[in-house]
Amino acid sequence: MRVFNFSPSPSVLPEVVLEQIREDIRDYCGSGMSVMELAPSSSLAREIIEEAERLVRDLLQVPMNYRVIFSEGPVAMHYSAIPLNFLSEHKCADYIVSGHYSNIAYREAKRYGDIAMVRSTAGAEFLALPKVSSETFRPDADYAYLCLNDAVWGTKYSDIPSGITIPLVADMSSCLFSEPVDVSKFAMIFASCEQNLGISGMTLLIIREDMLRRDKEELPTKLSYRKLAMADEMLTTPPIFAIHTAKRILEWLKSLGGLEEVKRQNEKKASLLYDYLDDQPFYNTPVEVRSRSLMNVFFTTGEGALDSKFAEEAARAGLLNLAGLCAKGGLCASIYNAMPYEGVEALVAFMKRFRMANPKWNMGEEPVIEEVVYSPLDL
Amino acid sequence: MRVFNFSPSPSVLPEVVLEQIREDIRDYCGSGMSVMELAPSSSLAREIIEEAERLVRDLLQVPMNYRVIFSEGPVAMHYSAIPLNFLSEHKCADYIVSGHYSNIAYREAKRYGDIAMVRSTAGAEFLALPKVSSETFRPDADYAYLCLNDAVWGTKYSDIPSGITIPLVADMSSCLFSEPVDVSKFAMIFASCEQNLGISGMTLLIIREDMLRRDKEELPTKLSYRKLAMADEMLTTPPIFAIHTAKRILEWLKSLGGLEEVKRQNEKKASLLYDYLDDQPFYNTPVEVRSRSLMNVFFTTGEGALDSKFAEEAARAGLLNLAGLCAKGGLCASIYNAMPYEGVEALVAFMKRFRMANPKWNMGEEPVIEEVVYSPLDL
Repeated sequence: MRVFNFSPSPSVLPEVVLEQIREDIRDYCGSGMSVMELAPSSSLAREIIEEAERLVRDLLQVPMNYRVIFSEGPVAMHYSAIPLNFLSEHKCADYIVSGHYSNIAYREAKRYGDIAMVRSTAGAEFLALPKVSSETFRPDADYAYLCLNDAVWGTKYSDIPSGITIPLVADMSSCLFSEPVDVSKFAMIFASCEQNLGISGMTLLIIREDMLRRDKEELPTKLSYRKLAMADEMLTTPPIFAIHTAKRILEWLKSLGGLEEVKRQNEKKASLLYDYLDDQPFYNTPVEVRSRSLMNVFFTTGEGALDSKFAEEAARAGLLNLAGLCAKGGLCASIYNAMPYEGVEALVAFMKRFRMANPKWNMGEEPVIEEVVYSPLDL
Repeated sequence: MRVFNFSPSPSVLPEVVLEQIREDIRDYCGSGMSVMELAPSSSLAREIIEEAERLVRDLLQVPMNYRVIFSEGPVAMHYSAIPLNFLSEHKCADYIVSGHYSNIAYREAKRYGDIAMVRSTAGAEFLALPKVSSETFRPDADYAYLCLNDAVWGTKYSDIPSGITIPLVADMSSCLFSEPVDVSKFAMIFASCEQNLGISGMTLLIIREDMLRRDKEELPTKLSYRKLAMADEMLTTPPIFAIHTAKRILEWLKSLGGLEEVKRQNEKKASLLYDYLDDQPFYNTPVEVRSRSLMNVFFTTGEGALDSKFAEEAARAGLLNLAGLCAKGGLCASIYNAMPYEGVEALVAFMKRFRMANPKWNMGEEPVIEEVVYSPLDL
């Protein structure tokens, strides 16, 4: 029986896509070969890469002056590559440190120049996002950096204004393709593929062409965005299987009706959960309302031991990976594109049952952890 | 119908492993999840990583003072990472440039220090490998670099002597796991996974622990071997699916009887092809005998147009990706671990038929390219 997997990374994948991939692994399009075995120079492989790029451009309405690159390697590589590519002679950039991932990116960038941490919400434990406007950044900054959705703290920027003149670089790992995005507001968007785009080990880059001119000669070839965009000879074997998995997911998103419809479904799922959270006193979500993520819903009973009990019993009931990963602990339900509405319904039903089974915890009495066995059928 | 795929990269995969992976994609070990969806912190994912490492150590008899790392990203990343990690203050290293891949690695390294190209066979078009001994290298070199098997030129070192005092760094992308190797001769072995270890996008590193101390503070975190070995926090999501694929292949190698038996089978396959090549005048292999690769067999009819005709007609007969990729053109049959003996038999049978169908080409007459239609059934 298939479980509901609320992991922040890698994400649940659509069952229909998993079935397609299983067929493609046996024999891809009657080629007599597995999709894993396709030579990168073959017409079938080239079609996969071209079609994946076309779908990215189509779904996100990527303007013509942006390059779309499927880059081998992890997203964290780009925490180094971004300053190494984009810092000019005076080496100055501004980072919004608003969560787990932007904090790592900031610490990596700090080694390469005068990197300012602007508008950190670290004091507030990353539960509210600082506002962003042109005044937020130093006028001479080479670029400004932010993470649009933090999967660990459950926050999301939904109000990036137009007209910011500093080139804006955005990590959209956990929210790209969950709703439409105005690409033209950003100089570069990047996203790991293991959330809404398939398997880990690949990063999608969308870079405005003028940014490619900042490349420096001494950069490791595989970190140079200009060379990646040129498909330099060192780009030996593209990760065809990872690109193919992404392509199958993009086709699925297209078949759902595109990103407006995907957003509608995601809002419906997230509302079910947030509405319940707002509607009772047992659980609460400490994230401020305007910063709530559609993809990662952070909540807590307010008691660490009870949160742990919740995650353990939920796992036994077929609701997996709900333990929070942030410094505050708590619980986090990642409800990416591929999480069905039924998964969120099952989670809310479990939350109700768990609350009924643990009444003392809200009465100020001494906590007694009782184990209740839930079977998946209870849901 | 399954074809025989002679591509140098990515390689053919064992059918039995493809079937296992298809099952693992539907439901991994009764977890209710696809192997693609496993959270890296889950016990199932940790078991995959630990078991893959254990199999690498077991099959290759890796000494205890070496670390085994599955690194996200392409092998070409390490062309930069190796000099950036291992060059000391005086920045001096020696490269044996003996083929396509070592040539790219040399050009990348040259940007970072005093990099000597030693014993190049470039003048001879990389068809013979220079001998290697302690005298080959400068005594103060930080390290010496070579590519053990060049998949493009079809060459293989089979006689690396013991007792070389300079730390030896070897790219074994296209030959690791094709036969036993004495790991202790090398300071570092690395290999892309898309030949004998699964899908592209991951690199296997085997590094002697003393080499990890050469790490420099300013290195991009994901390029620092010391930090990779420490499993630094930036190593967010390991590429579980790629590691799992590698694990399934390693299990298969183990089930065959280990690397001595794998070598025996590879020698049997390669002999069938080399014996035929040596036994008739129509085709020849320009690689000198002592440098012949077991994995990639380079051959030619001596005529570019006839080689092209061969590759095209072979493809129609179900023998794919035989066109050579080196500067000399020609033909190249990559016969990795997963290529069945029947595949090489089918290739030799096709070579015989093609030779019969194109007799004029050996008579000094004007070439007339006639198209002969081969069906897979002819083989």
